[in-house]
Amino acid sequence: MEAILVGFGFIGRSFLSALKEKIRVIEKTFPNFKLTGAANKNGYVFDENGLDLAKLSGLRDLIQYPGRFIREPAVELIERSGADVLIEATPTNIVDGEPGLTHIVKAVENGMDVVTSNKGPFVVAFGKIMKLAEKRGVEVLYEATVGGAIPIFSLARNCLRGSRITRVQGILNGTTNYILSKMHFEEIGFEEALREAQEKGLAETDPSYDVDGIDAGCKIVILANALLGKNITIRDVKIRGIREVTMEEIIEAKRKGMALKLVAEAGEEFKVETKPIPLDSSLCVHGSLNAVRFETDLAGEIIVIGHGAGRETVAAMINDLLSLRPR
Amino acid sequence: MEAILVGFGFIGRSFLSALKEKIRVIEKTFPNFKLTGAANKNGYVFDENGLDLAKLSGLRDLIQYPGRFIREPAVELIERSGADVLIEATPTNIVDGEPGLTHIVKAVENGMDVVTSNKGPFVVAFGKIMKLAEKRGVEVLYEATVGGAIPIFSLARNCLRGSRITRVQGILNGTTNYILSKMHFEEIGFEEALREAQEKGLAETDPSYDVDGIDAGCKIVILANALLGKNITIRDVKIRGIREVTMEEIIEAKRKGMALKLVAEAGEEFKVETKPIPLDSSLCVHGSLNAVRFETDLAGEIIVIGHGAGRETVAAMINDLLSLRPR
Repeated sequence: MEAILVGFGFIGRSFLSALKEKIRVIEKTFPNFKLTGAANKNGYVFDENGLDLAKLSGLRDLIQYPGRFIREPAVELIERSGADVLIEATPTNIVDGEPGLTHIVKAVENGMDVVTSNKGPFVVAFGKIMKLAEKRGVEVLYEATVGGAIPIFSLARNCLRGSRITRVQGILNGTTNYILSKMHFEEIGFEEALREAQEKGLAETDPSYDVDGIDAGCKIVILANALLGKNITIRDVKIRGIREVTMEEIIEAKRKGMALKLVAEAGEEFKVETKPIPLDSSLCVHGSLNAVRFETDLAGEIIVIGHGAGRETVAAMINDLLSLRPR
Repeated sequence: MEAILVGFGFIGRSFLSALKEKIRVIEKTFPNFKLTGAANKNGYVFDENGLDLAKLSGLRDLIQYPGRFIREPAVELIERSGADVLIEATPTNIVDGEPGLTHIVKAVENGMDVVTSNKGPFVVAFGKIMKLAEKRGVEVLYEATVGGAIPIFSLARNCLRGSRITRVQGILNGTTNYILSKMHFEEIGFEEALREAQEKGLAETDPSYDVDGIDAGCKIVILANALLGKNITIRDVKIRGIREVTMEEIIEAKRKGMALKLVAEAGEEFKVETKPIPLDSSLCVHGSLNAVRFETDLAGEIIVIGHGAGRETVAAMINDLLSLRPR
């Protein structure tokens, strides 16, 4: 099996280091596994005999790799590589899904399976990608797009066979959860908590994508389309973020043994809202943890909690990779 | 695919009713699915053309099924049926694993896959069963033996590929969790809480198996052997049940925002102990919920919560059934 990696940011580099660490396990499933190419936004490296994982996984920038750095777009690598799998780890863009969408479509059209952490393509074109993949007989796996390391799609596929999922709820955005936890435990205001999150690199300079609930809304789009068989877009999700939360609401919730949380939900309705939930409820996770609650007809409720972001996310990508059929 | 069911108690009958409810879903995976036989401790019914699920799933006792009730042991059904799968749902016996152990071994020797909810055989003979199954090229799936409807073994197999599980902790016994919750929330003593559990049918007349931590210990044996590659027996598990818990301990824990729980653990040590855990920790579930926490090298911690007993348990058996290779 030959794989290529497109995207050399935090997730791409973390994936490489997990790949290097777990290469023996991967070779047990795919005896001839090779990573033959890697691309960032400036170009790519390619070696049909396989790149040197030890050398590659230590790099900050791909251009430092000893070998020819070809200043052409990743699409060229996808098309010339003849690889079996594309690992897509470029940043999320929810406006048009690019460049991830083009990478994924090109890969599928070339008969490649895809493993990705990039939400964008699935927010704007879930149905299109899945139909194309079915037509070409390839797999597109995207466990890492929602809930980081938490098994969601692989769990629904492999652990709830026969049960119908009727509703999915979750705490799915780390930035807002950090801010709300700060406000709850330290009783500081939204602006101050946001500033701290920004200083720690947990919130962007323009924090709107997170604090206004758009990221959580995108995750609801993917959950609804993947698990409930819907065909919705972000415009179908009713969203109320955390920007308006006041200290009075925080303290009132605390007084009742509750905490304000940004709760995302897909069921009869599709929504993201800031609301109090009991501190001792299983969904009420703090810090970097995410939580997902499935309601099902046969298994009842199943709640899964785990790291929603960070290095652990690549565990979901490694699981996806090892779930592919051998080639 | 032809299946037979052995065991016609609560789990066996609940399985039948789920089978009837989900027959269309099952036929999507196994187009020619038939249940050809069913046995209880007094005998069995058999029809090579398939039993009538609608008639069968309403019965309290198998003898009421319209058709010949053969007063011979289930082993005869297993050997004559020529079925592809044994659904084993007899009660747990941790002394010698019988009659489940013999049923499972006979089925495997006859080239049948096995799906079971019966802990006993895996507590006394995990390695033996798995070796035999490997030799015969069949699958033995036992998701329902630990944590009821919670995906544990299927999750480890399908959702954590590439990650190594280093430690498993859990709240895995419903009876003790009910008693401890009663003591915690209503501040009543152990004896009174136990009596209430017995009146509700949640505890046996001889409650020792649950309250002395033996049931949780058995589950640790299965978790350690299945997920950590160990080869332990119940004698390797250090067990301290809930019988000695005093109201003082309960109140002291409450004062600290904690609750006493029967926590089972497999890692460097194998143990079951009653100890306070924070009320807001994800493991701290109440009532009929169980919780399992995996520590892994790549995915970090993953916690799964769900119904640990009751009708929901059969969801795990249906998932196991649908995970088998088609025949």
